[in-house]
Amino acid sequence: MTTPRDNLISWLRDAYAMEGQAIELLETQIERLENYPEALPRLREHLQQTREQQTEVERCLDRLGADPSTLKESAMKLGASMQGMMHAMSSDEVLKHALGSHAFEQFEAGSYRSLMTAAETAGEPQIAQTCEQIMRQEQDMARWVWEQLPHMTEQYLRRSESGAEAKR
Amino acid sequence: MTTPRDNLISWLRDAYAMEGQAIELLETQIERLENYPEALPRLREHLQQTREQQTEVERCLDRLGADPSTLKESAMKLGASMQGMMHAMSSDEVLKHALGSHAFEQFEAGSYRSLMTAAETAGEPQIAQTCEQIMRQEQDMARWVWEQLPHMTEQYLRRSESGAEAKR
Repeated sequence: MTTPRDNLISWLRDAYAMEGQAIELLETQIERLENYPEALPRLREHLQQTREQQTEVERCLDRLGADPSTLKESAMKLGASMQGMMHAMSSDEVLKHALGSHAFEQFEAGSYRSLMTAAETAGEPQIAQTCEQIMRQEQDMARWVWEQLPHMTEQYLRRSESGAEAKR
Repeated sequence: MTTPRDNLISWLRDAYAMEGQAIELLETQIERLENYPEALPRLREHLQQTREQQTEVERCLDRLGADPSTLKESAMKLGASMQGMMHAMSSDEVLKHALGSHAFEQFEAGSYRSLMTAAETAGEPQIAQTCEQIMRQEQDMARWVWEQLPHMTEQYLRRSESGAEAKR
């Protein structure tokens, strides 16, 4: 038997690990982003936001008398799958980065949507509120990447047509 | 130098491979879905839709005098990353499946959004139209999964609290 509170703790730990992956992903992207400098301010802003999200999740765990230190199996599995996605994105194609980021932000948004329900069911409305707030931030970021796609694609095609430095 | 047409062909091949992954993913989900039978009709419908999408992509390649048979490196990389995600989802947790599906459908939607621009730039409005249509189908499916999340989470928590058969 697993109580809603047990599941909530377990999923918040997953979320903590997920934010760790998000931070790594954003740092890599910011480092590699050569040909789309106009995206840097938003990426840096979201990196800062992501660090704060991780702290928020830690506070939620704290409120439940738990800590994020115990790496659960599912968190590690998630890590492995995200690593796969990041590996696919470590090609220098800014477009693949963007497609991966969009999907990753959506994955995060979905996780927090599920966490909201878990927090409500466990009688933790404050945690539910935090999860909703983070969910909206992830959705905003996903939408922003989505909006960039046509312009990024055009730019990529133009660079690609003009020669060798095009792949980035 | 890579022309917009070259990139379009290359990305349509990626999309063909991606739809192949989507078919595998949906077949696995349909097979494993024990505790959420109400989702079956929509999943089966989307499986059928996905097969048609793959055929549509093949027709686009055909129109460009290309075929999907040459597996490109990037398609294989994508395959590997999706395999990672599917591996994470091969745990029997219906919720992780749903989170992964949502992200995957969003990944597909983003890919077709980028493909739309590529097709327009390559002077292929008919292909752009096909990509837009598929993009909307992926968005619809992603939205559907998104809408299921709270209810699925509740059901999961209830089963989880009632005992051992809860993980599915």
